[in-house]
Amino acid sequence: MALSTANSLSPSLSSKLKSKPSDCSVRFRSTNWIALRPSPFSSPSSTELRRSTVSSSSANRVISMIRASAAPVIDQSVSEANSRAPTIVEVDLGDRSYPIYIGSGLLDQPDLLQRHIHGKRVLVVTNETVGPLYLGRVTDALTRGNPNVSVESVILPDGEKYKDMDTLMKVFDKAIESRLDRRCTFVALGGGVIGDMCGFAAAAFLRGVNFIQIPTTVMAQVDSSVGGKTGINHPLGKNLIGAFYQPQCVLIDTDTLNTLPDRELASGLAEVVKYGLIRDAEFFEWQEKNMPKLMARDPSALAYAIKRSCENKAEVVSLDEKESGLRATLNLGHTFGHAIETGVGYGRWLHGEAVAAGMVMAVDMSYRLGWIDDSIVRRVHDILKEAKLPTAPPEIMTVEMFKSVMAVDKKVADGLLRLILLKGPLGNCVFTGDYDRNALDDTLRAFCKS
Amino acid sequence: MALSTANSLSPSLSSKLKSKPSDCSVRFRSTNWIALRPSPFSSPSSTELRRSTVSSSSANRVISMIRASAAPVIDQSVSEANSRAPTIVEVDLGDRSYPIYIGSGLLDQPDLLQRHIHGKRVLVVTNETVGPLYLGRVTDALTRGNPNVSVESVILPDGEKYKDMDTLMKVFDKAIESRLDRRCTFVALGGGVIGDMCGFAAAAFLRGVNFIQIPTTVMAQVDSSVGGKTGINHPLGKNLIGAFYQPQCVLIDTDTLNTLPDRELASGLAEVVKYGLIRDAEFFEWQEKNMPKLMARDPSALAYAIKRSCENKAEVVSLDEKESGLRATLNLGHTFGHAIETGVGYGRWLHGEAVAAGMVMAVDMSYRLGWIDDSIVRRVHDILKEAKLPTAPPEIMTVEMFKSVMAVDKKVADGLLRLILLKGPLGNCVFTGDYDRNALDDTLRAFCKS
Repeated sequence: MALSTANSLSPSLSSKLKSKPSDCSVRFRSTNWIALRPSPFSSPSSTELRRSTVSSSSANRVISMIRASAAPVIDQSVSEANSRAPTIVEVDLGDRSYPIYIGSGLLDQPDLLQRHIHGKRVLVVTNETVGPLYLGRVTDALTRGNPNVSVESVILPDGEKYKDMDTLMKVFDKAIESRLDRRCTFVALGGGVIGDMCGFAAAAFLRGVNFIQIPTTVMAQVDSSVGGKTGINHPLGKNLIGAFYQPQCVLIDTDTLNTLPDRELASGLAEVVKYGLIRDAEFFEWQEKNMPKLMARDPSALAYAIKRSCENKAEVVSLDEKESGLRATLNLGHTFGHAIETGVGYGRWLHGEAVAAGMVMAVDMSYRLGWIDDSIVRRVHDILKEAKLPTAPPEIMTVEMFKSVMAVDKKVADGLLRLILLKGPLGNCVFTGDYDRNALDDTLRAFCKS
Repeated sequence: MALSTANSLSPSLSSKLKSKPSDCSVRFRSTNWIALRPSPFSSPSSTELRRSTVSSSSANRVISMIRASAAPVIDQSVSEANSRAPTIVEVDLGDRSYPIYIGSGLLDQPDLLQRHIHGKRVLVVTNETVGPLYLGRVTDALTRGNPNVSVESVILPDGEKYKDMDTLMKVFDKAIESRLDRRCTFVALGGGVIGDMCGFAAAAFLRGVNFIQIPTTVMAQVDSSVGGKTGINHPLGKNLIGAFYQPQCVLIDTDTLNTLPDRELASGLAEVVKYGLIRDAEFFEWQEKNMPKLMARDPSALAYAIKRSCENKAEVVSLDEKESGLRATLNLGHTFGHAIETGVGYGRWLHGEAVAAGMVMAVDMSYRLGWIDDSIVRRVHDILKEAKLPTAPPEIMTVEMFKSVMAVDKKVADGLLRLILLKGPLGNCVFTGDYDRNALDDTLRAFCKS
């Protein structure tokens, strides 16, 4: 029953829903964030990001479509009988637009995947941890009732330290040995590392083939699987080699979180906290009330946090796909965090753990600059503690280690390091290179022993 | 004098010339080629490419702008005094359009390069052969009167066998060690291997930075530097990993051909012959008359052949950037040729040498299918002989070697190998998977001893 409901969703659902609002419940976000060009009076290297009342045209750029039979979402009354129909968040990128399906049991709904497979050949890229858990179900979802499709798989070692060129070559080797052609589809099954590597492999194999994201961690579900950033690490820095390459769809089966280790769960919540801080104060306040539920894996709370995070990410990506300004704000805490990841060695700290410590440092620096009041500093500290996330970098990190990695950050432009910093009331941030260098030095010294 | 003339060319020259045709001589090609959707009566897997009378709108898609003071071109009377002003062929790709500058002495016109450099940092990618000859002049052209720009360089080993991931990593290493940022520009200085590798590195470094092509071989000037195909080889096949990524401009200084070995010159002419065969019979006839001049490096003849080749390539790329059909026709002879290059080991045969033998095989197969008459077979054979190019694969090649490499060709779709074959009068071709398999087998057997 639920299956046939899902089958009735066509890829053109979005336009149908837009043209027939009476058929379903279409929610518009009530607030929006816009990047303003610097005024003649503002600092030249700063992009201020301010809350605005949303206009109908800008609201239309990202529409979160909640069907009457949507998956459990905190602020929706849902029909239990149809709880397996997915929530859909649309990423609006013109002819490269795609849906994010969110819900419980979606891996048991073959049509969701099959509608996005155009050729006859699929390569599933996964790792030694996730493969044994879900590869069989994904293969079944790809082929059930669809005998023309054949599925190959490549199983990579698990961990950020393998997000490198040598491991990427294993994907190309498998694709070429399997004689896959331009009409094949790559499927990323796993966390952020698998999604980033599979996406870059899809971007580069035969100069570009289709791909699909099936993220199985909170980190990948709320952040890395959405928006088309793909790539690998270089020994000198994270994600320095890659491509902007959008998937055909993102399928988030929230049931896959049942097998996620606690530490990975918390790591993903760091990115959830980030959305609240940079652009969604109401969401941050919701998190302050509901962090115990999230940590206890309450399905409804997790589903809501994932949906609202995807809405935030989809909106930003739709407005600024190639990161000319606004999109950079999604990297709050990441410049400090990448330095930690590189400094301690890839994989020793999880990405979200490093981002959590990095956000505390960015917030500390914002406070030193006089851009936020101390209540925000305290609230950030408290919510990360509640999520059992670090609030300081590891002791091994020195001021020099931070500076040397930050110098090769992708946000450096003509020698100037631009940072995402909070400014104003909760939910407001800036992406700027126009800050007092002493504040950065003071923050680094405050968090490093040497 | 010539320099100031060049300086007066702004990047928006194209639109200015279009809106003021009386200011200059704007030539429209008198014929055009269009890809037709298969009619209900045509074979389903074939794209027929037919000559059509050009309409003004389609002619406008590619405009070859010949200034009154253009570089020496056979069919133009030129002013000797202004002979250093470049001929410009525009590649029309919307907001990714770019000019191809063609002429003598262009490396001594700094403005041509500098107008396309947006940041302060440049990385020149070249090889051990070309670097000692031209790196100094290119560095001078990038920095003369422009002290804010700093130039790094990376010198790769020379040859197709180094067009691999290990060598590509040297470019990333240099870029990251030099702390280049997103506003940097990569410059490819060399032949097709350098252009393809540098372009892919630019596509992937920090998920994409600007790049410029300075091709120094006929092969690169008439083909590989134009159109945005970038990539590297895999041990199992050519160009299997890469990206479609367009440069900011292509600068062709025809003087660089003075240092080109004879064998490389001939290799490039194979691609020139190709344009005539697939879409420009008039150009083929011109080549039949002028091949001795081309082989003798007559500057005017070479400049004309390069310009007309670039016009053909630009037109095809503008109509079909991502190779959904029409663009594949540029690969006449390449499927057989790639098998030869892979079979004998990358670099033993030059690309154009393999393409020449491959074209002979494609023409042979077209004749076996009854699609062309024997006069074309003879003329292709004769012109390649005149260019001192091979007209058969090396003896080492077996039918099985051809088949195994051709099975991983990028033009395979759902298991079906599509080929570019000649059909009809000279200058007509098809890209099709709908051919008698026996003809392919007969051709392979005719050219292989086993």
